[in-house]
Amino acid sequence: MTASISTGHRARRDRLRAGFDADAFLVSDLINVSYLTGFTGSNAALLCSIDAGDDADQIATDGRYTTQVAQESPDLPATIERDVVGALLTHAVDNGIRRVAFEAGALSVAAFNRLTKRFDGKVELIPTSGVVEDLRSVKDAGEIELLTRACAVGDRALAAIIEKGILEPGRSEREVARALEWEMYAEGADAIAFETIVAAGTNSAIPHHRPTEAVLAAGDFVKLDFGAVVGGYHSDMTRTYVLHHAADWQRDIYDLVATAQAAGRAALQPGADLRGIDAAARDLIAAAGHGDHYTHGLGHGVGLQIHEAPGIGSAATGTLPFGAAVTVEPGVYLPGAGGVRIEDTLVVTDGDPLLLTTTDKTFTVL
Amino acid sequence: MTASISTGHRARRDRLRAGFDADAFLVSDLINVSYLTGFTGSNAALLCSIDAGDDADQIATDGRYTTQVAQESPDLPATIERDVVGALLTHAVDNGIRRVAFEAGALSVAAFNRLTKRFDGKVELIPTSGVVEDLRSVKDAGEIELLTRACAVGDRALAAIIEKGILEPGRSEREVARALEWEMYAEGADAIAFETIVAAGTNSAIPHHRPTEAVLAAGDFVKLDFGAVVGGYHSDMTRTYVLHHAADWQRDIYDLVATAQAAGRAALQPGADLRGIDAAARDLIAAAGHGDHYTHGLGHGVGLQIHEAPGIGSAATGTLPFGAAVTVEPGVYLPGAGGVRIEDTLVVTDGDPLLLTTTDKTFTVL
Repeated sequence: MTASISTGHRARRDRLRAGFDADAFLVSDLINVSYLTGFTGSNAALLCSIDAGDDADQIATDGRYTTQVAQESPDLPATIERDVVGALLTHAVDNGIRRVAFEAGALSVAAFNRLTKRFDGKVELIPTSGVVEDLRSVKDAGEIELLTRACAVGDRALAAIIEKGILEPGRSEREVARALEWEMYAEGADAIAFETIVAAGTNSAIPHHRPTEAVLAAGDFVKLDFGAVVGGYHSDMTRTYVLHHAADWQRDIYDLVATAQAAGRAALQPGADLRGIDAAARDLIAAAGHGDHYTHGLGHGVGLQIHEAPGIGSAATGTLPFGAAVTVEPGVYLPGAGGVRIEDTLVVTDGDPLLLTTTDKTFTVL
Repeated sequence: MTASISTGHRARRDRLRAGFDADAFLVSDLINVSYLTGFTGSNAALLCSIDAGDDADQIATDGRYTTQVAQESPDLPATIERDVVGALLTHAVDNGIRRVAFEAGALSVAAFNRLTKRFDGKVELIPTSGVVEDLRSVKDAGEIELLTRACAVGDRALAAIIEKGILEPGRSEREVARALEWEMYAEGADAIAFETIVAAGTNSAIPHHRPTEAVLAAGDFVKLDFGAVVGGYHSDMTRTYVLHHAADWQRDIYDLVATAQAAGRAALQPGADLRGIDAAARDLIAAAGHGDHYTHGLGHGVGLQIHEAPGIGSAATGTLPFGAAVTVEPGVYLPGAGGVRIEDTLVVTDGDPLLLTTTDKTFTVL
């Protein structure tokens, strides 16, 4: 298992090397380091050689992680030093590496100023953005396996709280959120993917509502947006139910969101324009007169982070790659009344996208 | 409550204004924004006017948080725009503010390059570092109250798992960690402060061990390092026990660490040199021949973040301020055998430091 994973990380570094105009690439975003090396400690950087290939790659971390880095990245020589970026630039200078591309979004102005002073005339720092993020937007088989497991944990946890009668009038939003998180751990989650949203009644009209002591009541919408982490990979799913009895307006907006969500899923084709995918769902909601009640993007990439490339929204640029894992999550929110969001996590294939979150989403009165 | 809290945030901004050589201070570190405004959303920045006082202050966040920012920061006018830093610099230009200090550690090179291009000739950006972090290192009464509550949650949760017989041979590290986290939630935690460490047997020799399926056995050291978040404030405590029967070497290193920890606590005096505090504990461990088995600093500030200023270590600079909340956590780790760490969270006063983590730390065989 370790061998095959580490081969996978090397293959990712080889993809990074392809066609790069620099002597080396300095990776300081921790998630990107983890993606390219397997190392999961909280302080690390990677120097990825462009010309010299994998043998010249070097990872750096500090003394807390000496054992862990040897276990998680056995194929990489490690420098143990607290200032990981400084250590790798020293390694670059010592090995005649001069032109070093770096992640401009992952290095602070303070760090950059320190480094340019210290390595003045010795290293040329070349800003880049989104290079590893673009690689990460296309998932490999191992990543899809972990995403599938994370989504299955979410499916089973939601089924469990419904089965146990926890999603019922009289419970508080916080109580439901804690129970859902507990079930995710019981089902194999390593961690909770993000702050669980449980929003009942009028709170369901708040897109990102933090669970409160508000008590669920008959006739309420209850919106649950939650996810699990398995092996570093995040799941993301939203379901909205009605408790005990539903009003016509609730059925109406649910049907509208469900129709828009299906249209968004159907638009997930490799090469599709990201704005066009967003529009496939948004135009249906706008045509029904609820354009102003849908205030966020249609979806986002998901993987080692809960939000990653590609973003699918009305201001997005670019196209959807084959192998991307993304959410599709339109919503309609009526302030003071209630709101509906329906969200799945899917993988883009040549045919129908692969649906990872399999919980039923037909209109359901619990 | 809201009024007094918001007065507190204004008082913090007034402290920031004092003696600053710029027209305004742009705060983009999210924790610092929260400290100065009370706002807890995931995208925000603050422009704090130096000369014009509080009336000219402005917060920015995006459309997800329109309601929340009005509730949490009712005394601040808010700009609603996704690019929060760009929005505030536009606000600065519109109001004749030219010299803007910014947090060089909280702005990426990519963001800085975008901004300097966009505001070229209109705004002068002046790098600063650690300004708000220094303010945060001195806690006010409201902060000490929340730290006290967070630490009490940790104390009660640890007592509960011992009382329930969960810290016993046959349980896995992961099982104990989950139970401890569950009890923290039950005792009133809003969140878990950091990844809970439960390390049994030889794993206790790994300073930052991630809980595994390893099963606790009689004769093991069990090291637990964990914390709760209450109202945004973090607790941090480590206790190490022996299960069922202890060997002499275990008593010996426990006594050594306990003595060093007491010396470190006694050294927590306002104005004390940070390196001197570290040395008070470290010298005892080194004199006992275990200098190489104690591989980390003595402690760190704790508050809105689990690790914040001041750091207490052998390479620290500066002195300990009155009112700082810090940990004291020496350890001795014998690879292949086991390790001990004892950690408290305390507040620096004129007399004895105030001990917030009150769980007994005499040598205990469970």
